[in-house]
Amino acid sequence: MTLIYLAGPEVFLPNAVEQGAAKKALCEQYGFTGLYPLDAELDPDAYDSPQAMAFAISRGNEQLIQQADAIIANLTPFRGVSADVGTVYELGLARGLGKTLLAYSNDVRPFAERSYAMFGPAEAVYSASGELAMIDRDGNSIEDFSLSDNLMIEGGIQLAKGRFMTHESSAAERLTDLSGFEALLQWLAAG
Amino acid sequence: MTLIYLAGPEVFLPNAVEQGAAKKALCEQYGFTGLYPLDAELDPDAYDSPQAMAFAISRGNEQLIQQADAIIANLTPFRGVSADVGTVYELGLARGLGKTLLAYSNDVRPFAERSYAMFGPAEAVYSASGELAMIDRDGNSIEDFSLSDNLMIEGGIQLAKGRFMTHESSAAERLTDLSGFEALLQWLAAG
Repeated sequence: MTLIYLAGPEVFLPNAVEQGAAKKALCEQYGFTGLYPLDAELDPDAYDSPQAMAFAISRGNEQLIQQADAIIANLTPFRGVSADVGTVYELGLARGLGKTLLAYSNDVRPFAERSYAMFGPAEAVYSASGELAMIDRDGNSIEDFSLSDNLMIEGGIQLAKGRFMTHESSAAERLTDLSGFEALLQWLAAG
Repeated sequence: MTLIYLAGPEVFLPNAVEQGAAKKALCEQYGFTGLYPLDAELDPDAYDSPQAMAFAISRGNEQLIQQADAIIANLTPFRGVSADVGTVYELGLARGLGKTLLAYSNDVRPFAERSYAMFGPAEAVYSASGELAMIDRDGNSIEDFSLSDNLMIEGGIQLAKGRFMTHESSAAERLTDLSGFEALLQWLAAG
């Protein structure tokens, strides 16, 4: 039985539980078992402080990742130009633990293009040879390798011989479209 | 000899090399050796594509993290509300590999406060009992555990029995202030 940890910012959506259920149902359809962060229902009253509860959630998620054979991470940009950092941490952890790494993004634009649109300078800066300087408004460089996000993310997936897919979704379904997710399940099932 | 991987968005600064040199000099002062992503100077002409070069950088960084005994991650928010995702991936990887995890942020504000300021709704939403709803403008929840960033990050450091510190820097020195970094070196040296 292949256990797949379902990482992504879905846990922050108003329909977080339903999104998890939909992903778990798809996993089952392909013969896999999905492990979703919200599977563990914690009682806020059982903790002395918000931090203690947060650490319990973190411990539970790390345990699920350790149990899992693979991770499928939703790396669609979340509140900004990059993937949700919690999801990215989990992907790195899974890489360190030697798990199978699968990930998708529902935004096909390259990282450099998204970053420049969001953080580029008010006035474009050009080199002597006429090339656009890929810098942000503070003069920091914007990495431009035709990848979907920071190079450590897609690089790690590549080093792990995993798979990363992008799929263009409508803005309304940006975080919930499961086409890329299902394509990864098909890829894993074809093994 | 304790090897420390120096993770952070410094690699994107105009003075990226100098920042790395400053961090390495501080490491040496405390009897440690710092490993900085830009130590490996890659020749862009040696690669067939930008992606191939990006993957070579990723491979080099992962190798440095594997060699290292510890990681010190600069988790100061970078181009948005959270830490640089590349740095966060590296922290997760180091956690999976069982390394010592140390991290700092030069912004003392809690994650929820920063997130609400940047992504909160135009009109505040209150519950029947008068509590402010911690949601963003899309209705997604903003996690509110009095932590500095997504709970997986500080949670992982806590699980690893590592150390996370915040330090308030001036805006101009937000990404370059090394007070928190040095405090972590002192903590590590005190062992």
